[in-house]
Amino acid sequence: MRKTVVLTGYGYRIGKRSNLIVIWDKSGRKIELSTGNVGRIIAFARGLSISGDALKLILRHNIRFIIVSRSRPLGMLHSFRRSAPVKLIKEQVYAQNDGRAIYIAKTIIYGKLSNQINILRWLRRGRFRRRRFESELLLESYMNIMDLRSRLSKMELDLDDYRSRLVNIEAEASRIYWNVISKILPPEIGFDGRRKRYERPRDVLNLSLNYLYTLLASEVWGSIELNGLDPWIGYLHIDSNRRPSLVMDLMEEFRQPVVDKSIIAYLLNYKGDYSKLVMDGRLSDDFLKELSKLFYESLKRKVTFNKYYAPIDSHVNRQARRLARYILGITSDYKPFNII
Amino acid sequence: MRKTVVLTGYGYRIGKRSNLIVIWDKSGRKIELSTGNVGRIIAFARGLSISGDALKLILRHNIRFIIVSRSRPLGMLHSFRRSAPVKLIKEQVYAQNDGRAIYIAKTIIYGKLSNQINILRWLRRGRFRRRRFESELLLESYMNIMDLRSRLSKMELDLDDYRSRLVNIEAEASRIYWNVISKILPPEIGFDGRRKRYERPRDVLNLSLNYLYTLLASEVWGSIELNGLDPWIGYLHIDSNRRPSLVMDLMEEFRQPVVDKSIIAYLLNYKGDYSKLVMDGRLSDDFLKELSKLFYESLKRKVTFNKYYAPIDSHVNRQARRLARYILGITSDYKPFNII
Repeated sequence: MRKTVVLTGYGYRIGKRSNLIVIWDKSGRKIELSTGNVGRIIAFARGLSISGDALKLILRHNIRFIIVSRSRPLGMLHSFRRSAPVKLIKEQVYAQNDGRAIYIAKTIIYGKLSNQINILRWLRRGRFRRRRFESELLLESYMNIMDLRSRLSKMELDLDDYRSRLVNIEAEASRIYWNVISKILPPEIGFDGRRKRYERPRDVLNLSLNYLYTLLASEVWGSIELNGLDPWIGYLHIDSNRRPSLVMDLMEEFRQPVVDKSIIAYLLNYKGDYSKLVMDGRLSDDFLKELSKLFYESLKRKVTFNKYYAPIDSHVNRQARRLARYILGITSDYKPFNII
Repeated sequence: MRKTVVLTGYGYRIGKRSNLIVIWDKSGRKIELSTGNVGRIIAFARGLSISGDALKLILRHNIRFIIVSRSRPLGMLHSFRRSAPVKLIKEQVYAQNDGRAIYIAKTIIYGKLSNQINILRWLRRGRFRRRRFESELLLESYMNIMDLRSRLSKMELDLDDYRSRLVNIEAEASRIYWNVISKILPPEIGFDGRRKRYERPRDVLNLSLNYLYTLLASEVWGSIELNGLDPWIGYLHIDSNRRPSLVMDLMEEFRQPVVDKSIIAYLLNYKGDYSKLVMDGRLSDDFLKELSKLFYESLKRKVTFNKYYAPIDSHVNRQARRLARYILGITSDYKPFNII
């Protein structure tokens, strides 16, 4: 597994020595990386310096070098060689018009509902003796989502309307899911249902979810590009010039295990004053830092999925690869990530 | 007009100061460039160093930054913004399976043959009084290519074999074209026909063509990416993971006016010892620099094409845009660049 190197601080210098990438931090401390071990270098632009020989080594070994400014990726170095078969991008387009699109979209929703069920089960485990009422509510909610899931698995879908029919099931499940979560969380949080960014929520949970899902999207985006897929050609989400639909598709299965679980657990265990986390309808700077830490820690959690024990971020990368292999017809199925 | 900065020597350092790109050479001499004036920076990797802030400035101002290693472009910096509709890449794939593919491929070959005819006519203009024999040879050759061209325009092509039939015509024309050129050039050059890189030619013309076509490819590649097209999905050249077929397609029309004409004129006017240009079967460092200069000068030559007076490099960019518009069905035809 090739690793990701993230250089967040100020004053890094990247050079090379024979076949090694050498990184000095501002205090002159040196790390040497073998090109074979590094898959991606994410570097903040400020105070960075990089040598041409290092750029050459990076390009030669197909390492992704991504330049970041604050929280946004600006651009990346991109080799004049192809890292994936040309066939892949073509099949990605063709798959939008055949059974593969329906299979992928349906599988994604099936996986999402299963993950929601597992989140609610996990929440119930801590409660079913002590808090009878909440426990009943959780049970009832995940049973309802299970009903939706079995309705989904029986659905015969066709290309004309599979997206809208799946999105309806998904919306219904999410309503049930977030509704019961709003009843489990302390009322001081002020969460009364899921609100997206453009709906301008002011409660800490919605604000955190919107921030964390953005981090998740950039992580998923990287793994999609790394595996030679086009981020803009998706199956559940419709084509848009504003949102990369394949990124939206692939991130569904990671929302609950990577984001929802961490932030819900954090807020349930939080002992301080919730109102300090939000200032003027925005998350405080300290809490944003806390959330970033929370996110990268949850990506580093090692779990076994599909017989493979690894940190979640390498599962993200493998899932993109599996999706590519399914699209190419190398494998006949695709299984969404399901470890809560 | 945004200029091209080529850093061929050893030991350049690129940084920034407010909105300026600052370049120091190895002796510490400093050049400051306003981002608005620079369109492209081509830098040799050896001994280069660049700051993150400069990379950021380059990305923000849509400057192309290309890393070159000796004679090959290795890669370029590429921004994360989407510059074109999602629909384009999909239509690019679909167009491979309908009449658009045939039209584009046929038009490209038609354009190439016309450009070859024009190169031979241009060569004949300087000769047809003084050098009777050469003049006859040139006339005969371009008449032969004209015959091929009229055979081409009558051809009824279909999706099953249009590529191979067009490639046959093209091969025949190129054989005639390079054959007469080999007879026009001084024999000391040792050019006896066109040889590609893998054929390991040792004569100055073949070595120069291989180098210059590589520079042209990187130029065309840039304009293809800039206009939101996928470089790997082409119409005349077949899909390959090693060569970006759309780049190969679009560069055909620029080979003769940008590369062939300049290098042939240069060699015809060259007064020195040809054998000094090649050392051990490779171009000398000085001559590589000379060729780079020649190439970028020829890109800066201003000409009128399609009612638009501009340097050739902006015609390259406009042709990529026109090809995208044809693929999208916004225009109903595409006209290859034809100014020798």
